[in-house]
Amino acid sequence: MQEMKDLIRKKGAYLGGGILKVDSFINHQVDPSFMKNCGEELARLFSEVSPTRILTAEISGIAPAIMTGLAMDIPVVFARKTKPVTMPDQVYLTIAPSHTKGINVELIVSPEYLAKGERVLIIDDFLASGSTIKGLVRLVAAAGATLVGIGALIEKEFEGGRDLLTPLGVPIESLACITHLDENGIVLKD
Amino acid sequence: MQEMKDLIRKKGAYLGGGILKVDSFINHQVDPSFMKNCGEELARLFSEVSPTRILTAEISGIAPAIMTGLAMDIPVVFARKTKPVTMPDQVYLTIAPSHTKGINVELIVSPEYLAKGERVLIIDDFLASGSTIKGLVRLVAAAGATLVGIGALIEKEFEGGRDLLTPLGVPIESLACITHLDENGIVLKD
Repeated sequence: MQEMKDLIRKKGAYLGGGILKVDSFINHQVDPSFMKNCGEELARLFSEVSPTRILTAEISGIAPAIMTGLAMDIPVVFARKTKPVTMPDQVYLTIAPSHTKGINVELIVSPEYLAKGERVLIIDDFLASGSTIKGLVRLVAAAGATLVGIGALIEKEFEGGRDLLTPLGVPIESLACITHLDENGIVLKD
Repeated sequence: MQEMKDLIRKKGAYLGGGILKVDSFINHQVDPSFMKNCGEELARLFSEVSPTRILTAEISGIAPAIMTGLAMDIPVVFARKTKPVTMPDQVYLTIAPSHTKGINVELIVSPEYLAKGERVLIIDDFLASGSTIKGLVRLVAAAGATLVGIGALIEKEFEGGRDLLTPLGVPIESLACITHLDENGIVLKD
């Protein structure tokens, strides 16, 4: 998606340690019109797999997931990282290591909103090491639902997430793919 | 907003301790089309105060804020509760007590995205005790920006947030207002 690539080139900044700063348009400040365009493009890419539900992880996954859900007219569920008091005692819970934070995070979904028979499309802001998305995949499996695709706004190809997820046999799409990232610049796949 | 009142009556559940369960349509599962309607209604209610920016708090504020921002065509900033590595060292930070969690939470905004001269509309999922919103108001003041309005999806009138915020002298709007909540039912203002 050209608009995403242009924004990464124009506003993305490399902070060292493999970290890309995109908080001016993805994970702190969001331009809703741009995010709507992203959602429409993800909806187009996954139109053939007919999802009935989108699953994402709070926090930065919410904006792209909700805009994809709007374009596809299907509900969005966001896995919580701490169990709210409104959740039942019995939940689906998995642990995913967070690469950027250096800690393990819990991903929790209520069985009320992820049921057997659902066709689930996972949407997140980043596809990097793939560990958060792999956690979401485990929640889909725990619910007896069917994973039909994985989409992300930005892929960091060099972190190997795609290799980890490819054996799942579902389409994996990203709106921009970074092949190389260092103090000399950001290299994007054409 | 009739659609919100109907959903609260149909799907809301009282869990005791003043807690209303609305996670089937607001803070765990979201219907993007319904949330878009909410955003359009909030945009209509605040059309006269001409905001240039929306401020919310992660996590459940993101969906209503982004849909309001979409309807008004203005950027959305979500205050973070933990400082990401991509944020500069110098930030606006305030502490807000969380009524439902019984703990204090940090609300953090980067000065890059909340500047002097901005006209800020605060949007959140709940207006209850008002303590989170009051925290956001302090961030607006710290940035030297101007607060122009406060909007929420659901107001819990009996928790007194509106009384706390009224002295600010800006319009305060909610899409549904709960006047009473107990095991006998949910009472909504007409």
